[in-house]
Amino acid sequence: MNFRETAARLPAEGENNLFGKSFLRTWDMTDEDVKAVAAGAGALKALRDNNLSPKYFESGIAVSMFSKKDMGMNIAFASGCDLLGLTIIDMDRKLGNSAINETATMASYMADALGVCESDFIEKSSRYIKRISDSVEESKNNGVITEKPCVLNLGSDEDSPVQTIADLQYMAEKFGGTENLKGKKIAITWAYSPNGTRSLAVPQGILSLVTRFGMNVVLAAPEGMELMPDAYKRAEENAEKSGGSFSRVSSMEEAFADAEIVVPINWAPYSFLEKRTELSAANLGTYIDLLEHELRENNKEFIDWEVTEAMMEKTKDGKALLLHDLPADVTDISCIRGEMTAQVYSANSASLLAEAGMRPYVIASMILFAKAKNPRAAFEAMAEKATKRYF
Amino acid sequence: MNFRETAARLPAEGENNLFGKSFLRTWDMTDEDVKAVAAGAGALKALRDNNLSPKYFESGIAVSMFSKKDMGMNIAFASGCDLLGLTIIDMDRKLGNSAINETATMASYMADALGVCESDFIEKSSRYIKRISDSVEESKNNGVITEKPCVLNLGSDEDSPVQTIADLQYMAEKFGGTENLKGKKIAITWAYSPNGTRSLAVPQGILSLVTRFGMNVVLAAPEGMELMPDAYKRAEENAEKSGGSFSRVSSMEEAFADAEIVVPINWAPYSFLEKRTELSAANLGTYIDLLEHELRENNKEFIDWEVTEAMMEKTKDGKALLLHDLPADVTDISCIRGEMTAQVYSANSASLLAEAGMRPYVIASMILFAKAKNPRAAFEAMAEKATKRYF
Amino acid sequence: MNFRETAARLPAEGENNLFGKSFLRTWDMTDEDVKAVAAGAGALKALRDNNLSPKYFESGIAVSMFSKKDMGMNIAFASGCDLLGLTIIDMDRKLGNSAINETATMASYMADALGVCESDFIEKSSRYIKRISDSVEESKNNGVITEKPCVLNLGSDEDSPVQTIADLQYMAEKFGGTENLKGKKIAITWAYSPNGTRSLAVPQGILSLVTRFGMNVVLAAPEGMELMPDAYKRAEENAEKSGGSFSRVSSMEEAFADAEIVVPINWAPYSFLEKRTELSAANLGTYIDLLEHELRENNKEFIDWEVTEAMMEKTKDGKALLLHDLPADVTDISCIRGEMTAQVYSANSASLLAEAGMRPYVIASMILFAKAKNPRAAFEAMAEKATKRYF
Repeated sequence: MNFRETAARLPAEGENNLFGKSFLRTWDMTDEDVKAVAAGAGALKALRDNNLSPKYFESGIAVSMFSKKDMGMNIAFASGCDLLGLTIIDMDRKLGNSAINETATMASYMADALGVCESDFIEKSSRYIKRISDSVEESKNNGVITEKPCVLNLGSDEDSPVQTIADLQYMAEKFGGTENLKGKKIAITWAYSPNGTRSLAVPQGILSLVTRFGMNVVLAAPEGMELMPDAYKRAEENAEKSGGSFSRVSSMEEAFADAEIVVPINWAPYSFLEKRTELSAANLGTYIDLLEHELRENNKEFIDWEVTEAMMEKTKDGKALLLHDLPADVTDISCIRGEMTAQVYSANSASLLAEAGMRPYVIASMILFAKAKNPRAAFEAMAEKATKRYF
Repeated sequence: MNFRETAARLPAEGENNLFGKSFLRTWDMTDEDVKAVAAGAGALKALRDNNLSPKYFESGIAVSMFSKKDMGMNIAFASGCDLLGLTIIDMDRKLGNSAINETATMASYMADALGVCESDFIEKSSRYIKRISDSVEESKNNGVITEKPCVLNLGSDEDSPVQTIADLQYMAEKFGGTENLKGKKIAITWAYSPNGTRSLAVPQGILSLVTRFGMNVVLAAPEGMELMPDAYKRAEENAEKSGGSFSRVSSMEEAFADAEIVVPINWAPYSFLEKRTELSAANLGTYIDLLEHELRENNKEFIDWEVTEAMMEKTKDGKALLLHDLPADVTDISCIRGEMTAQVYSANSASLLAEAGMRPYVIASMILFAKAKNPRAAFEAMAEKATKRYF
Repeated sequence: MNFRETAARLPAEGENNLFGKSFLRTWDMTDEDVKAVAAGAGALKALRDNNLSPKYFESGIAVSMFSKKDMGMNIAFASGCDLLGLTIIDMDRKLGNSAINETATMASYMADALGVCESDFIEKSSRYIKRISDSVEESKNNGVITEKPCVLNLGSDEDSPVQTIADLQYMAEKFGGTENLKGKKIAITWAYSPNGTRSLAVPQGILSLVTRFGMNVVLAAPEGMELMPDAYKRAEENAEKSGGSFSRVSSMEEAFADAEIVVPINWAPYSFLEKRTELSAANLGTYIDLLEHELRENNKEFIDWEVTEAMMEKTKDGKALLLHDLPADVTDISCIRGEMTAQVYSANSASLLAEAGMRPYVIASMILFAKAKNPRAAFEAMAEKATKRYF
């Protein structure tokens, strides 16, 4: 990729809608903004791959707030922030009834970015991240903080914009641009995992995003493995507007047939997540354990929702691009039975790891768009300066 | 604030008493030194608010040693150190019988600052921080380390100099200079909290500091909620010397009457803290639980020591400046009944957060005074260089 | 030490065998390579001691992966990486059955160094670190990552190359060069500790390294306190090749007699470690507790294996150089009875701390050799640039 050509496609002064913004859900962003962030990620990657330092900040910190450990996203956030020159501070916190504006503001005295991951509670998780964003906005307006950090959703109950824009940019690089995604069949399918309690953020996020680019999207899941009702509606509307299509089928086979891209992923049904959120609000931990146990038992019925080599054979020319937000549950490697076989994983692991490798650049791109009025000029200045990352 | 004017007030070569020093208690510092550190904090804030980078260090680390998590002070330390270009390393440690000089020296091979927070044990906590400071001094003298890091007390059993100098500078900015604090009435009062076991560091620290600036200081606490005996004596002597006054009253109402500044804060009585320290030395954890339970039960008698809107009305023109070292225990927000009502908190939260926002700058100022022989020249060089923090 | 003279001894373009390499065991390195890394550590120390910044990287991260907390090595890694300009990210991880290549690659998207400490399991620990190294190699070859981070063994079941090369460089500075170690008697002896379950990494590592430099090496341990069989064989072969000697004795007294260097250190016998590894693989935690209890009880028989002042008197002129990878178990300081008396510790603590202070420089030296094709030029460029670490 030619760096200067990419930079020329980035928004200049007055064209950057994302300046000063938070990144909570892709469906709050225009298509142009999504593509700009994705292109920015690609440009940053090109810089670093050429040993040039995209160190936009001379100093500054980024604060990560994870309700649960998530090794992959945590290191992606740390990596992306470091790329721009920000040092990461991990803030322990619990989703509680303490004053959110206090926590958010204390983290923000010198932070240029807050990365928040909170996915366990339907509606509440999104609201929590939104309140963090509103609080720093308010503290900025009150003059309590001089600069507003960019708030990034690193995974909520409903979306995971870093993951999905990383996937978009990864597909764009594979197929020669987002415009080439038009008309391609992509299968998003539920897959078995012994854990079984993963949030809806990634399947909903992918579904909501790819339907905007004219793709033929097929969603497959066992009976009862529902997403939030909104997600289907959004997918339908997007597909209609973008000239693509959206359909739902009830088997992985049907979804995989002739697909050019496949996204196997485990999720817990919406009804389970709603129920767990209620039980959690009522402090009924024992019943949560029971509920999770029942879900896992029930899931065993769908143990055949596993991506095998035979299943991959059904895709277009038998070689669809396999996407997954790592870590994956892999049969015989990380569990007895999982989302895909060890053979499928091994054959695709280099690609899966390259896909995940886009996340730090998406994070850095988001922060740059939120902090630089003129991202195009910022990129050009960094390319001009051409500081070697090491000599 | 004009940056150059402020810089001109900072000590130059030969005038900096704080070079090579640790920051353990404000009462070990002269009035001039305290004011210099406060002014330095203001100058650093002015630099950063103008997007100039006060990055004094090209590289280097700062090590934080917290015996208990303290989100607010921890992020303040990380923020203040990053401001100067230092990366933060969190060192897990327990106050134990292991060789303190070993821990302190290992942390110091490349550290420019050690931030220590240890407040649970009467006398022992202070002694522990002092031994860390003595150990690095010794290792420097032995040639084991080339440079002595600055040791900062981030909260001990008896003082919290970062918090109190932050408060001093915040008041100075509000009232147009520390000289304008003279003659103002400040109320420091115990307030109810369901936790009830907070250390004496902040109330004693505030009391010991503000009595040095000619203020009329009134301390209010329920029967039995004693500070260390030294604290009263120091307050009396300071008040006499500074031309202010110090008195003790037995109700929040009396303290608040016509006060221009109010500081509601919960603390555990000295007798409790002494007893807990003894029980802890004897490894009698069960009895500590019992002792804490009794304290909490006893405290319920004083549940009316809460700052309400009616209470705030009693202050000068009904609009005293409210100070608190966050996080606060707020009724209906973080607990059922706390130090202040949600109304009082909301009305003052922007100011409280701005007050807490001074802490990172005080930390940075302390480190700069300890490491730069000529702080004035250092500030002028940074202003001259005028490196933008980001472009 | 004159910096330019040292730099002149470092490998130049085409001479650096360590470029792109991992550091797993010293016995995989040539004598020249070991000496080059040690000399590099000395050169980096000289730079920093003169307030010059050896900041080789403009930005970048280093990831630490510790299976257990190890305060000393953790802070050494953080310090050494910061010295070169890398920010440290701590990655929580467990030695499990999850895909190692996934963990290693995710850590490596922007990492220039991975520091791994995993010492509990005989053979498995080494294999784990090796697989991390192989995984990043593979991801580099696959094009998944643009740059391969240097993988450092910070302590495994069989070696601790950072510790032992730090010791080598420390001895070299004390005796005027590694060439002067030839013919000197060094005693490596087991010493009592109430814990008793330490790995073989340090004793085996020291033994394997010093026998390469013509020293007269005497190993002393109680009956049954065996190292891995390989370690003795390697020591014998090394000693023969280097013109030194290697012998085993059964008392500390015999080993200390006329020794110029003494290394008292506790370790658990190989048979115990093998058994524990088996029990752990079978998830038999209760039996591990029992096994450790039995070991501690058995060890009490050897409580006299303690370095006392009288024991030190037996060494050459009564003043052998005492080495230890801190923290030490010191009688009356960190335990009731330990590896050495408080008197011996106090008399030697400055030297022990200076020895440990070499570790961050060895870590930085390793990373520099792995990342710079021409370390000599890198050093000269840094000296030329002469950026002050602070002004």
